[in-house]
Amino acid sequence: MTSTSAGAPSALPTVSREFVLAARPVGMPKESDFSLVSVPIPALTDGRLLVRSMFLSIDPYMRGRMNGVRTYADPVNIGEVMVGGAVGQVLQSANLRFQPGDIVNGYWGWREFAVSDGAGLRKLDPNVAPPSTSLGVLGMPGMTAYFGLLDICQPKAGETVVVSGAAGAVGSVAGQIAKIKGCRAVGIAGGDDKVAWLTGELGFDAAFNYKTTENYVAKLKELCPNGIDCYFDNVGGAVTDAIFPVLNTKARISISGQISQYNLSKPEPRPAVFGYLLTKTARAEGFLIYQFAERFPEGIAQMAQWIREGKLKYRETIVEGFENMPRALIGVLQGENTGKMLVAIR
Amino acid sequence: MTSTSAGAPSALPTVSREFVLAARPVGMPKESDFSLVSVPIPALTDGRLLVRSMFLSIDPYMRGRMNGVRTYADPVNIGEVMVGGAVGQVLQSANLRFQPGDIVNGYWGWREFAVSDGAGLRKLDPNVAPPSTSLGVLGMPGMTAYFGLLDICQPKAGETVVVSGAAGAVGSVAGQIAKIKGCRAVGIAGGDDKVAWLTGELGFDAAFNYKTTENYVAKLKELCPNGIDCYFDNVGGAVTDAIFPVLNTKARISISGQISQYNLSKPEPRPAVFGYLLTKTARAEGFLIYQFAERFPEGIAQMAQWIREGKLKYRETIVEGFENMPRALIGVLQGENTGKMLVAIR
Repeated sequence: MTSTSAGAPSALPTVSREFVLAARPVGMPKESDFSLVSVPIPALTDGRLLVRSMFLSIDPYMRGRMNGVRTYADPVNIGEVMVGGAVGQVLQSANLRFQPGDIVNGYWGWREFAVSDGAGLRKLDPNVAPPSTSLGVLGMPGMTAYFGLLDICQPKAGETVVVSGAAGAVGSVAGQIAKIKGCRAVGIAGGDDKVAWLTGELGFDAAFNYKTTENYVAKLKELCPNGIDCYFDNVGGAVTDAIFPVLNTKARISISGQISQYNLSKPEPRPAVFGYLLTKTARAEGFLIYQFAERFPEGIAQMAQWIREGKLKYRETIVEGFENMPRALIGVLQGENTGKMLVAIR
Repeated sequence: MTSTSAGAPSALPTVSREFVLAARPVGMPKESDFSLVSVPIPALTDGRLLVRSMFLSIDPYMRGRMNGVRTYADPVNIGEVMVGGAVGQVLQSANLRFQPGDIVNGYWGWREFAVSDGAGLRKLDPNVAPPSTSLGVLGMPGMTAYFGLLDICQPKAGETVVVSGAAGAVGSVAGQIAKIKGCRAVGIAGGDDKVAWLTGELGFDAAFNYKTTENYVAKLKELCPNGIDCYFDNVGGAVTDAIFPVLNTKARISISGQISQYNLSKPEPRPAVFGYLLTKTARAEGFLIYQFAERFPEGIAQMAQWIREGKLKYRETIVEGFENMPRALIGVLQGENTGKMLVAIR
């Protein structure tokens, strides 16, 4: 590759700020578990480019990476930059695939500016969809809802689909896809405003606020008079416990997340579920979205079409300012978001 | 159908004994939960036949039918005859399909003699296999092992398959099928004699006695150095809890039974499992053997071939005497059997 100097060097930043993991959290992360550091931006070498972060993704899975345990992915080590999806603009490029001004999606983590060799970067067309959607409805959370519901649960028209964490980036999409497929969609969320959004703008058939509902099983029986055929689980814990007595025979459970459990040092005792799975001949399956990576183009195309047709709506909760990244992650773990949680960097 | 009188009426019994459910058990059933009653045997009418029980099946699922709760099947009502599989000999027949002397398999329950219209009866050829095997390795338990392992777990050669309740009628077959399919088979059972049978005669690669093992997780890690790909669960409870930390990515769990839980009045708290299923992208699925009923001929043919080839062995624990039916059921719930539990009636 030839060396290509591009952009206006005079305006280029020389220092970037990053958040590194300072301490492994015990329970809910604290802001002091992160450390904001300033690092010099190295001069570009052949094939590299410099990106300015516009939106940084905040996702519940990040909590898992802060533990010192390998699960499906390596943990972030102490002193390392926090991982995460990002959207940014190319400021300078010595890579023929990218030009200054290009908007790109990548996984450069909690950084104001990033130097990349272009691997894993995807150019976005802002005329097709707002760039931030590549982190939400047209990104990992949207794909999680799409494949996690359609492939794992395989909902059929007329069936009842219950979604927990229904007002989040994943759940809000999963419930709408259930509706598109002709199912009854019932959401569980943590706030009356969220419930109103689900049953109003998003067209869920019913929803309830788990924070103000005493008896989840009774409420589910009321809202799912024909029982539950599919359960799309983002939360685990007491909400999920209540699903089992309402399951129909041959029910399918897609385990997308367990956000209520991420701040526990060890799995907590819960009512046994295998007896229910046995007598209901039901299936529960965990998945990670990366197992569907080859089919993302299919999912993104379908979701983009549904958005154009007005069948699929989304919302973003945007926190302003890079320095608020830790606060935003704590917020998403506490359910402060409606739809996709993002940090915008001006 | 013409009226056909057959057999030697002079030798025919006029009274049958039956066990009816006397009380719904709390916890482990007691003999007083059953009542032994004598009933007159009605004269045969057209199309009916009289059968003398030779072997009555004793199976863990019977405990579930004693509760006053509909699960996948209706409960046995108080005063009704206990349900169950049976093998017997036709004494008298007014049904053209059956002749006195025929050996038949059916589901006439805990009765010494039964009058049937022939529905659900299957004629057995004692030259092909001992009739009792139609209640075990070539019957419901064998089919449970065959389809529950092969269809739900889909084990591949080289994978590790762990079976709980491994010395029971189902588990002992599931582990041997795993071996036939080229897997490493590891059994969990409740006795040193059972463990010796599994690793000796049956060819399991390893097994352990859960009653004398302190740390199940450590033992499983030792016996499954490459992790667990498939888990065939007959027991639930603490044994099953120990599987999760040893599961491999994409593990499959077939929930065949939960015998350790059947005597609990309500599901007991257990460590949460959805977090494991999520991070391992694993699947747990309950099944009932009747969903595979159409494929029983395939399963029975394959199992019979493996028996003829010496690849599949079985054992029966035979309790003598009809009056010992309750004691035999209590025994199977306490793990007193090795292989299939039967009551023989002379």
